[in-house]
Amino acid sequence: MPHILSIQSHVSYGYVGNRAATFPLQLLGWDVDAVNTVNYSNHAGYRNFTGTKVTPADLHGMLSTLEDNGMMGQEYILTGYTPDARSLSIVEAYIQRIKQASHATYLLDPVMGDNNRLYVDSDTVPVYKSMLKLADIITPNGFEVELLTGVALNTRGDIKNALDVLHNSYGVPHVVISSVELELEPEIGGGNTKPEHGEIIKPTILSTIISSSTLNSFNSFNSFNTSNTQTRILQYPLIEGNFNGVGDIFSALLLANCESSARNVRGVIEIDTLTSATEKTVGSIQAVLNNTRNYAASILPENIDDIVENDQSNSSRIWRQRVRELRLVQSQDEIKAPRILHRATEFV
Amino acid sequence: MPHILSIQSHVSYGYVGNRAATFPLQLLGWDVDAVNTVNYSNHAGYRNFTGTKVTPADLHGMLSTLEDNGMMGQEYILTGYTPDARSLSIVEAYIQRIKQASHATYLLDPVMGDNNRLYVDSDTVPVYKSMLKLADIITPNGFEVELLTGVALNTRGDIKNALDVLHNSYGVPHVVISSVELELEPEIGGGNTKPEHGEIIKPTILSTIISSSTLNSFNSFNSFNTSNTQTRILQYPLIEGNFNGVGDIFSALLLANCESSARNVRGVIEIDTLTSATEKTVGSIQAVLNNTRNYAASILPENIDDIVENDQSNSSRIWRQRVRELRLVQSQDEIKAPRILHRATEFV
Repeated sequence: MPHILSIQSHVSYGYVGNRAATFPLQLLGWDVDAVNTVNYSNHAGYRNFTGTKVTPADLHGMLSTLEDNGMMGQEYILTGYTPDARSLSIVEAYIQRIKQASHATYLLDPVMGDNNRLYVDSDTVPVYKSMLKLADIITPNGFEVELLTGVALNTRGDIKNALDVLHNSYGVPHVVISSVELELEPEIGGGNTKPEHGEIIKPTILSTIISSSTLNSFNSFNSFNTSNTQTRILQYPLIEGNFNGVGDIFSALLLANCESSARNVRGVIEIDTLTSATEKTVGSIQAVLNNTRNYAASILPENIDDIVENDQSNSSRIWRQRVRELRLVQSQDEIKAPRILHRATEFV
Repeated sequence: MPHILSIQSHVSYGYVGNRAATFPLQLLGWDVDAVNTVNYSNHAGYRNFTGTKVTPADLHGMLSTLEDNGMMGQEYILTGYTPDARSLSIVEAYIQRIKQASHATYLLDPVMGDNNRLYVDSDTVPVYKSMLKLADIITPNGFEVELLTGVALNTRGDIKNALDVLHNSYGVPHVVISSVELELEPEIGGGNTKPEHGEIIKPTILSTIISSSTLNSFNSFNSFNTSNTQTRILQYPLIEGNFNGVGDIFSALLLANCESSARNVRGVIEIDTLTSATEKTVGSIQAVLNNTRNYAASILPENIDDIVENDQSNSSRIWRQRVRELRLVQSQDEIKAPRILHRATEFV
């Protein structure tokens, strides 16, 4: 089974970063080398958290020792939350070296923010742009696509433009936009009709976009490039609740499912592999989120949101967050044998 | 399923400390809160390693935040490698608070050294002695028993004396000496006969000692205590090879197997529970070690020890060590369903 280098955050309590990625991969038989970029008590979503960032010097030292000890022979690399540009540049330099020395497949999750809010230093954005050339697969969410491409995502046309930038300007072979909320999707969301009192509220629909590009270079003039991009869309209802670490599990499982899905004869990931892997990944994650939501509902009183609103002490807010930590170890069956409930279709 | 607080080391590569304890517990359905005492590239057995100890102030800060956030409600606590006395004293203080607030079961693994070599600061020894009063179960190896009790372990009588100190002077209810090599065990080891050329060498026998004490206090005079100690021994052949992290998995699985084994009606661990848990734990660990040894043998050349001896660069020594990292993720079946090959008997 594969060996992977995963560079992400560590929290003592709860499941984000390496704590979210490591267990599912291990469960699927992968050896996971976990380099931590921060060491925190719990994730920042609790607001009350303590710990330290691993300094750029320490990160450099540890990666350097791993290299010296011959411990950089992983077939896969996964990077996630790295809070500052100096540390991220060190990660970039080592991945460049690994990619030169081997044929490791690199999934870059450009963890920068969500819902229009940045939760890393803003000077990481140009470093991530620079790292795109190293990546085989990237898994930004909609907001991160906007940060990387400068294209605001409102319509399907916007997504196509952004994918064009990622594939053709930055040269990323495979892009999976982990989740984006598309407006004006009348066949699902009914976006144009005003909700009336008593109307059944349709669930919010999330979309995952899967896109692969094969660049055909005819380098005799070093100018004539045609790219063949295939793009698909997977849509499913949003599971309500403020969950953390979902993107981190998404990226880890996507790699695992790419590995286990059929590959073409050259061992190269292609659109069908990526699509199948995404369908499985979304299936597992929906199950984890359902298990988590049901667990939270079994514990929290129905009026928890009112309680939180009137609680000056913050303890009920933290409690609500705690019981929404992902039910990862309790969802082993759903991770090992994903049920595919939603199929991707051509993105037009 | 249970929730556990585990305070141990983190390494990016390989399986010791929290990296050895977390996955087996998660696989068995436990939520594991992993507080790291150090953040290293790899374990110190490689000699070449990089990283930092978590400072006492940071350790204090993180434990304090976990407490403030209501994240200290675990049913179980497990502590292992903590390299200096100041950090260990902070751990002690928090466990004292947790134990006062709840009925958490605490397994203390007094990780100090092995084979007569100390690998923590020597001033941790008195802190561990002080922590013994908090522990429900301790899992020292033979050398650590000697450090805690001052009794040199050569004979069965020595072990009884040391157990007497641990149970009756320090008040530890349950002691499992994870492994000790008993000399002068003629029925197994043939220790008195000189090996001759061509003789079949009998395997070295390891012993695990299981001991429970029920202290009957009649406190009207605060002086009349009788203790009822039951002690058993489990013997099995040593699997040759220089493996790291075995003790860390032992402690984690022992707790998990205590939980899953029958308990008496008051939910208290007793000698039969502890014995059954130890038999299962040794069964799983022997399987992990066999898988690891077989993997190493399939990769390393037969004359690897000669190669290492003549290699100035150290690279073959590190390579030999790397392929002996425990095959933990590859041994999931053996962890979930231990095969019991050896049964404990009365220790006389």
